[in-house]
Amino acid sequence: MRRASFYIIRDMIKLSDVNHRLQKAHYAVRGRIVQRAQELEEQGRKIIYCNIGNPQALRQKPLTFVRQVLALLEYPELMDGPAAAAFPADVVRRARAVMEKNPNGMGAYTQSAGIPFIRRAVANFIERRDGIPADPNHILLTDGASKGVQAVFTLLTNRENDGYMIPIPQYPLYSATIDLYGARRIDYYLDEANRWELNEPELERSLAEGKSGGVNPVAIAVINPGNPTGAVLPRKNIGMIIRFAKRHGLAILADEVYQENVYGEGLEFVSFARVMHELGEKEVPLFSFHSVSKGFLGECGQRGGYMEVRNLPDDVFAELIKLQSIGLCANTAGQITTYLMVDPPAPGDESYGLYEKEKGAVLGDLKAKAEILGRGLNAIEGMSVNIPEGAMYAFVRFDLPHADGTDPAAMTPEERRKYEAARDNKYCLRLLESTGICVVPGSGFGQQPGTLHFRTTFLPPKEDITALVEKMKKFHVSYVEKLRES
Amino acid sequence: MRRASFYIIRDMIKLSDVNHRLQKAHYAVRGRIVQRAQELEEQGRKIIYCNIGNPQALRQKPLTFVRQVLALLEYPELMDGPAAAAFPADVVRRARAVMEKNPNGMGAYTQSAGIPFIRRAVANFIERRDGIPADPNHILLTDGASKGVQAVFTLLTNRENDGYMIPIPQYPLYSATIDLYGARRIDYYLDEANRWELNEPELERSLAEGKSGGVNPVAIAVINPGNPTGAVLPRKNIGMIIRFAKRHGLAILADEVYQENVYGEGLEFVSFARVMHELGEKEVPLFSFHSVSKGFLGECGQRGGYMEVRNLPDDVFAELIKLQSIGLCANTAGQITTYLMVDPPAPGDESYGLYEKEKGAVLGDLKAKAEILGRGLNAIEGMSVNIPEGAMYAFVRFDLPHADGTDPAAMTPEERRKYEAARDNKYCLRLLESTGICVVPGSGFGQQPGTLHFRTTFLPPKEDITALVEKMKKFHVSYVEKLRES
Repeated sequence: MRRASFYIIRDMIKLSDVNHRLQKAHYAVRGRIVQRAQELEEQGRKIIYCNIGNPQALRQKPLTFVRQVLALLEYPELMDGPAAAAFPADVVRRARAVMEKNPNGMGAYTQSAGIPFIRRAVANFIERRDGIPADPNHILLTDGASKGVQAVFTLLTNRENDGYMIPIPQYPLYSATIDLYGARRIDYYLDEANRWELNEPELERSLAEGKSGGVNPVAIAVINPGNPTGAVLPRKNIGMIIRFAKRHGLAILADEVYQENVYGEGLEFVSFARVMHELGEKEVPLFSFHSVSKGFLGECGQRGGYMEVRNLPDDVFAELIKLQSIGLCANTAGQITTYLMVDPPAPGDESYGLYEKEKGAVLGDLKAKAEILGRGLNAIEGMSVNIPEGAMYAFVRFDLPHADGTDPAAMTPEERRKYEAARDNKYCLRLLESTGICVVPGSGFGQQPGTLHFRTTFLPPKEDITALVEKMKKFHVSYVEKLRES
Repeated sequence: MRRASFYIIRDMIKLSDVNHRLQKAHYAVRGRIVQRAQELEEQGRKIIYCNIGNPQALRQKPLTFVRQVLALLEYPELMDGPAAAAFPADVVRRARAVMEKNPNGMGAYTQSAGIPFIRRAVANFIERRDGIPADPNHILLTDGASKGVQAVFTLLTNRENDGYMIPIPQYPLYSATIDLYGARRIDYYLDEANRWELNEPELERSLAEGKSGGVNPVAIAVINPGNPTGAVLPRKNIGMIIRFAKRHGLAILADEVYQENVYGEGLEFVSFARVMHELGEKEVPLFSFHSVSKGFLGECGQRGGYMEVRNLPDDVFAELIKLQSIGLCANTAGQITTYLMVDPPAPGDESYGLYEKEKGAVLGDLKAKAEILGRGLNAIEGMSVNIPEGAMYAFVRFDLPHADGTDPAAMTPEERRKYEAARDNKYCLRLLESTGICVVPGSGFGQQPGTLHFRTTFLPPKEDITALVEKMKKFHVSYVEKLRES
């Protein structure tokens, strides 16, 4: 009951009062099904979280070298006492070198763009990786890649009708950020039948459709290796995208956080920066993103990453640094972890052997699990998947029978989208409730009308993956059966 | 020269193409004068950075307990070897307890709202501090307080004309965020003659002016203890603000990051939450912010903090958590530092003595420096300051003669603002160039027309503060003299 008052009181803030763009934004990876999983877990159910690329939550071990350096930097007094003996000599050398180059330590705000020597180390890393020059002054250290991506959306969204080309399926960071910032989206479909490549006619089709709908396209986002697709783009595909972007005056957002996660035989990660350099392309603005959360570090909690820009005027880049400055700077543990990622132990260093062994174990394990999962799911009737070549995900297609009298082809596109979203959501919810496996419905990433998918990671321990496939099979068969009977 | 091309090429992104709101946003604390200071430093000049509350960059030591626990959590293997002897027993116990309550460790994404046991610890802290109940489910862990403040601006800004009442002078996070999100601002002046308190007629005046200008006010921001003013608000002033907010249907943003930094005799920090509880106020939405960057920890680089909300419907708070989820979660080192801030060693713990000693030294030092700086500056002719009662800043008023024939009173308000901003900027630039002291011009925070100020921290080591005052005096006298001669 409302108390009497002498004042005219406006109602307390209601949901309908708050930012309508935020209300619209939807981030499937942490959506309703994950909330339900947390509820079930609190009730004592064992949940296998395959909804998010969070390796250390699924028992992947951090790299010893990274954590040893971080520990010394948090508490440098360790180096001056007998506890120093617990650390390899190169770890102590490395920690001392960091303190010399960054004497303010872990507890001080850094420059807004990040600690200068780390920006140089990132430039060196790109030079070594790609054999091309890189400029430390065009590098910005961020709290994970997501914050870098959001910063670029903030930078480039200037007018109401500014829009972004995003892949379908996509990582929902993109759709959510576009909704949040009031920009427009232009969906282009990845080619499931062709290892999820981008194809040029589809890019042209979607762009034309976006423009005819009044959208002013400013950039195209590409995720390589792909999330949720697990695809690794070939060089010629990247060249095609660069030429497409140039033809239409678009900037490129290259989400390259899975660059270390390439498993397919004969495949390699090729960066947009490298192809641009090889093509002598000097006009298409490129923003590329990397992170400590993926690869073989899996240091999601440290929130570290960087953005490298090319073909961008300095005064425009300065606006990105100013944006960062309003929140001061990225966290120092994340910045240091980024540094250790781009400048790992070298041959001859005391830590080198263990580092390589741990790295190899993580990547070898992921490669094996991608295979086991992919082959296992492909053997289930009514399920199919491109066996992941990279990243940490499989985007699995599954078929469900329709109820008698239901004809999706007769629905409006919006009706159909809702009908199909309801179907994949219900499927994933039942899968969770019946098996404890938490995956994300395909509608959260987007999918071709007429298809249903879910995204699963292949991060659980290897010994659990076979059992997981078995459970999925049993569930799918019984779910389809029930649908047929109903 | 432009290369020939078969394509019609849109120009590369130019500054004029990018987000006009970002272009407009200005963050004085890291603005032009700080850039100039960095240039001078690179040329070998010794710079005393008084522009930003970054204690560990000015030789304040981190608390041993905090860093010991962080080191063990980054590299838990330390606890199982002989190096464990380097740590007090309660530090090891604490680290083990954290790992039990958060078994995923530092490298995993946490829940979007933060690690659950830390949210409970924050609620317990508020209960102990204020003697009032607090709900862990209304607490959100953030990457420093700035990110929390920005999240609330994102939440509450729904329409073009939504506006925020902000103090003048203010911390430029507020003005910059308002510009960035395209909201409107309503400036209310703090009462310099009355220890920078808020006064009710001025609040009413500014609100009426804002409304008559078409602004729809949604919230009022209050910084207590004050930045840049160094003032500590008395309880009755807080009660007045709550009643004012209720009368006008406003939410309150209470920036309480300096709550441990209270130095004035007989003064104490009083939280908005406590006064609201005492008044039985159940309708005014309150967002209060705290941080590990200030107080006596000074852990700016760790980027840790929290937001507590009151009188906010759960579905509205859920939107804040969703917003956080789009960037995944706050960094783990910052979350753990927040935990250690709200749950420090207790009497009987092995670390208690050292913790209290280090805490006392930092706070005692700040109190002494506030006095030395305040008294020293007040003794300079043409300079005056309210001796800081709290926070880490003095907002120093200074007078300059006008050139013959210049009459600011005859200018339009906009001309006058520009004239005065040019004057305090030039003054601070010359101060920097002649003494190496880097302070921020008052126009970056806002000031009453007809007055000039600069903000300085009192963070340099005590032995440097007296010399700093001496240098400022010499500079001021000579600057005024030159102005008189010109």
